[in-house]
Amino acid sequence: MRIGMLTSGGDAPGLNAVIRGAVLTGETVHGHEFLGFKDGWRGLVENDTMPLGRHEVKGVSKQGGTILGTSRTNPFEGRGGVDRINEVMTENGLDAIIAIGGEGTLAAAKRLTDEGVRIVGVPKTVDNDLDATDYTFGFDTAVGIATEAMDRLRTTGDAHNRCMVAEVMGRHVGWIALHSGMAAGAHAILIPEQRTSLDQLVEWVTSAYDRGRAPLVVVAEGFTLDSMDDPHSERGLDAFGRPRLGGIGEQIAPLIEHRTGIETRATTLGHIQRGGTPSAFDRVLATRLGMAAVRSVNDGHWGQMVALKGTEIVHVPFENALGKLKTVPQDRYDEAALLFG
Amino acid sequence: MRIGMLTSGGDAPGLNAVIRGAVLTGETVHGHEFLGFKDGWRGLVENDTMPLGRHEVKGVSKQGGTILGTSRTNPFEGRGGVDRINEVMTENGLDAIIAIGGEGTLAAAKRLTDEGVRIVGVPKTVDNDLDATDYTFGFDTAVGIATEAMDRLRTTGDAHNRCMVAEVMGRHVGWIALHSGMAAGAHAILIPEQRTSLDQLVEWVTSAYDRGRAPLVVVAEGFTLDSMDDPHSERGLDAFGRPRLGGIGEQIAPLIEHRTGIETRATTLGHIQRGGTPSAFDRVLATRLGMAAVRSVNDGHWGQMVALKGTEIVHVPFENALGKLKTVPQDRYDEAALLFG
Amino acid sequence: MRIGMLTSGGDAPGLNAVIRGAVLTGETVHGHEFLGFKDGWRGLVENDTMPLGRHEVKGVSKQGGTILGTSRTNPFEGRGGVDRINEVMTENGLDAIIAIGGEGTLAAAKRLTDEGVRIVGVPKTVDNDLDATDYTFGFDTAVGIATEAMDRLRTTGDAHNRCMVAEVMGRHVGWIALHSGMAAGAHAILIPEQRTSLDQLVEWVTSAYDRGRAPLVVVAEGFTLDSMDDPHSERGLDAFGRPRLGGIGEQIAPLIEHRTGIETRATTLGHIQRGGTPSAFDRVLATRLGMAAVRSVNDGHWGQMVALKGTEIVHVPFENALGKLKTVPQDRYDEAALLFG
Amino acid sequence: MRIGMLTSGGDAPGLNAVIRGAVLTGETVHGHEFLGFKDGWRGLVENDTMPLGRHEVKGVSKQGGTILGTSRTNPFEGRGGVDRINEVMTENGLDAIIAIGGEGTLAAAKRLTDEGVRIVGVPKTVDNDLDATDYTFGFDTAVGIATEAMDRLRTTGDAHNRCMVAEVMGRHVGWIALHSGMAAGAHAILIPEQRTSLDQLVEWVTSAYDRGRAPLVVVAEGFTLDSMDDPHSERGLDAFGRPRLGGIGEQIAPLIEHRTGIETRATTLGHIQRGGTPSAFDRVLATRLGMAAVRSVNDGHWGQMVALKGTEIVHVPFENALGKLKTVPQDRYDEAALLFG
Repeated sequence: MRIGMLTSGGDAPGLNAVIRGAVLTGETVHGHEFLGFKDGWRGLVENDTMPLGRHEVKGVSKQGGTILGTSRTNPFEGRGGVDRINEVMTENGLDAIIAIGGEGTLAAAKRLTDEGVRIVGVPKTVDNDLDATDYTFGFDTAVGIATEAMDRLRTTGDAHNRCMVAEVMGRHVGWIALHSGMAAGAHAILIPEQRTSLDQLVEWVTSAYDRGRAPLVVVAEGFTLDSMDDPHSERGLDAFGRPRLGGIGEQIAPLIEHRTGIETRATTLGHIQRGGTPSAFDRVLATRLGMAAVRSVNDGHWGQMVALKGTEIVHVPFENALGKLKTVPQDRYDEAALLFG
Repeated sequence: MRIGMLTSGGDAPGLNAVIRGAVLTGETVHGHEFLGFKDGWRGLVENDTMPLGRHEVKGVSKQGGTILGTSRTNPFEGRGGVDRINEVMTENGLDAIIAIGGEGTLAAAKRLTDEGVRIVGVPKTVDNDLDATDYTFGFDTAVGIATEAMDRLRTTGDAHNRCMVAEVMGRHVGWIALHSGMAAGAHAILIPEQRTSLDQLVEWVTSAYDRGRAPLVVVAEGFTLDSMDDPHSERGLDAFGRPRLGGIGEQIAPLIEHRTGIETRATTLGHIQRGGTPSAFDRVLATRLGMAAVRSVNDGHWGQMVALKGTEIVHVPFENALGKLKTVPQDRYDEAALLFG
Repeated sequence: MRIGMLTSGGDAPGLNAVIRGAVLTGETVHGHEFLGFKDGWRGLVENDTMPLGRHEVKGVSKQGGTILGTSRTNPFEGRGGVDRINEVMTENGLDAIIAIGGEGTLAAAKRLTDEGVRIVGVPKTVDNDLDATDYTFGFDTAVGIATEAMDRLRTTGDAHNRCMVAEVMGRHVGWIALHSGMAAGAHAILIPEQRTSLDQLVEWVTSAYDRGRAPLVVVAEGFTLDSMDDPHSERGLDAFGRPRLGGIGEQIAPLIEHRTGIETRATTLGHIQRGGTPSAFDRVLATRLGMAAVRSVNDGHWGQMVALKGTEIVHVPFENALGKLKTVPQDRYDEAALLFG
Repeated sequence: MRIGMLTSGGDAPGLNAVIRGAVLTGETVHGHEFLGFKDGWRGLVENDTMPLGRHEVKGVSKQGGTILGTSRTNPFEGRGGVDRINEVMTENGLDAIIAIGGEGTLAAAKRLTDEGVRIVGVPKTVDNDLDATDYTFGFDTAVGIATEAMDRLRTTGDAHNRCMVAEVMGRHVGWIALHSGMAAGAHAILIPEQRTSLDQLVEWVTSAYDRGRAPLVVVAEGFTLDSMDDPHSERGLDAFGRPRLGGIGEQIAPLIEHRTGIETRATTLGHIQRGGTPSAFDRVLATRLGMAAVRSVNDGHWGQMVALKGTEIVHVPFENALGKLKTVPQDRYDEAALLFG
């Protein structure tokens, strides 16, 4: 068989391990050939390809990013669409596509498979917000980087008796905030799934400070002042009546300082959370997913993605993973909150 | 309630996070008091205690080792036994014990609970060889350290066209070898669960070398030459008829060099795999286990340990975890072996 | 002798190693006693002290921050001044003070020694901007953290064909930017000491991009648009005529994107650069400086600081270190610039 | 000009940064062309070459090992010699050679330049034992890795009340042991330059143990029992009259345990100290040395190597660096020893 492969959406540590796992087993064990499409769906729509064999994947599983490149191109826009994709697949003699990506990628893949294109998926989201899989690769690396950064922030907070605010990734869900905050011993964790009042936050911060600790507040980027129930801030304005600027970390730090009188500093971890060498956990998970994707192709599991359940790799129809975010459940947040303050 | 706590057996990254998780929730949420026993069962038998409150667990979740100390003392030996333990518990006004340890610790705990002592357990094994839990804390850290070491070994192997042998922990099971080897892209992984012939190993090494790679062989410390079916080595002797010296890595390196002609070097990772800052994954797991242990005490789940199933913390009777090692299943080894050579 | 000790100004990785080096040699070898002042000069002025002996410095050399706390208090302000300081020293029976701090701290120390207070200094600046010493502790750690972050940024930049801007510490000088940028293979480094036109920056970025690289731009926080000679931006406004917001990294990213058409993202590393475990280099340097400070006290080198010259620790009068910043010399920048673009 | 380049002897983190620094400046700034010789002098003698341009050095400065490969081949043995080397240089149209290597490489380079071959050298030794340069690249990385490993060993030593022995690199000199031991807070450091009696070692270990610490002993691989003045061990035999096996760490651990009664474990760090990602310090140093080597070629500094003095790169005749090891001076050891016990 000839298999096309693409990575789409934001990058995540482990993408290259998926690619390598698939190519090595596909080529060596099953005699498949692979073709890489550059920059996600763009490469497929524009027939922009690169060779993808044993040589290309040599040593890549420990590299961040993706050797195939990625983009947020929608395969149905512009000159794209099912006909064009079938045309490119035929032109390249391809039997199937392995698409590695998040919610958007899998939704597009579902629409394509519904129209007969043979696609299997590999789920990718650093935020870990995809349903039907216990964890996605990249998440563990991001949590590790964020935790190490917070370990550093704490020592400087302690030296100056400051409150440190760390803004981490998580546009819609708070998994990275929850795990890194718990690992780093945060005194408060703010996530999009949970409304938290400013009074509550102030109480946690003050309680830690009063015990002689430098408070550490972890906030997911998707948390907003609107979900803080802060009577003093209007929609779109901060508590001082100014337009909100910067990320939520930058917005919330002056509020804490204003209310508690404790010097407060914000750090936005940003892009460093999603790049660089993947953790061993993510490399193993990603390699196994890549290998399983080839088995899916062998077995004709079109319209399905590979996923982690406990310690096993399983197959899940695209639709089971789509349509609803995997949010932090109430009991997991409540468990973490027992350690706040 | 007053709760005694001890850590027993070899240390594992995450022990302090368990202790902190238990003490913080127990003290703050439920109003329990804690007492630490020093050096495992020894402290309990000898009534050697230390204070264990919020102050003592401050900032410890990111520290390796155990603030309580540990030892391999058996609570039934010497002046130990049920009566003595009941006596010490009464003397200290203790309602229950949280015992953190591996197979041996949990077996002793079971025997004690069978005789009426109120104990809940927290499973600990860096080797990840305990049944009835998906992962144990410390394992992820060990795999991460081993993987990083192998990343280093590979570059020096590449520079010199050498075969590098890395011996990792795993007396009875090959989990650390399997995960770190897969993460590092090993060309062969040797584990106690799998007989592997020297011919097979030589084939993997040679195949990698012939493709221009510096072969990486990962071997668990519990793998033996006897399980290699090497016709040239007698029981207890190496292939050159000499008494076997050093670990299996040191033994196997000259065999590889002798058979393949490829310069081969062994490195034994040893104690660095079990010390130091725990990974974020292990800190979260350990913290949750410590918190759950307190819930177990609250609910009177004597004779049970807390365990990880998927992403949930569950309760498991001691007997379910005892008596059989969690070995690497055949399909997991076969999956990894597809990438060898 | 009885010696008081304080750390003042921003924290730096290695402060605790200085303290430990001084206390261990002072106590064990020379029989001195130490007293810690809390939060820099504030503790001295307010006679806020803590015990400081072998026990307190146990294991601290690998911890970031400072066990003494720090602040930016000026010893001459408020109720401070020479008389008050002499009073506190007398009250505590102190023979001398070891003051660890940067430009401001050493300037205050000089003024005090000029009036007869017996002080020796240990230079501290993460930015490495102090004259009369080759390196200051904390700098190597900061460069290491920044370099690792940039290694991560590069992989995500590569995956998306983006230009990545990394803003690092360096209010007045560009040492951290120069070293981390060179280590990470940056395509442009912007430092306060060097005017650089936007045209030049655009040329470097475009040149790298055209060779298929994701451009990496490193900018010291003290670099300003005003030193860019950008005809389109007025003093205090950005190139789009808006008030400048955020750090220089955030300001410059849209300019690059606007001029080159290359998607550009900024990351501000911020406080993570100055916290956490010091590098081995910084621990050795800091330990040696702490030990040398005690020798200085023994020898009565009042008004002098210890410093690194080549591989030797030397003594330098305060005035030699004050009054002029150690900036990046032209030839070092030119050397680095050969690799730009 | 056309310049040949080779790396010889053991690998060291930073080799690739030297190569990249030289190629980028040589090619871009001066219009030189480069040719790589594979596996050190072997490639030169056997005319085994590889292309070496901007493309080949892309992103390599953060990779351990050497893209050119290395070996311990002597250029005067076998079919080698001056005539052969001149022949190969002529055949490839080469004007000069940049040879990167240690004592042996530079000695060979000196002999060749004495006979008219145009060579400039770049010093390389992880052990930092080369005279006429303050530091060599690779040393800082090795010290960092060893220090991190010791940080880990300490926590497991503390948990078990054990004495931990760490054997580090250093065949002839103790620089790595001195720096990593000082950084990790070792209670004893044993180096080849210093005879140390077993009684003295036992005193240090016992003193630390009696204060409640888990003793950490750091020993350079080149230290021997013969330099211990142990009356109980004969030349070539250990204290128990057995032939000495394993490294010095393995030999010394049972002696300590036997004499002190403290459970003692040895770890040999081995090859992990010389592989993998170089530290930022080493990348900067190596890059600068590579760039300076090209300036040396431009200026015709044949028979000289580039070297670090303070913060400057200087040129030094080969003979100044040869013939005498840079050992740890007595005052540096005495300084460190103040912290022992």
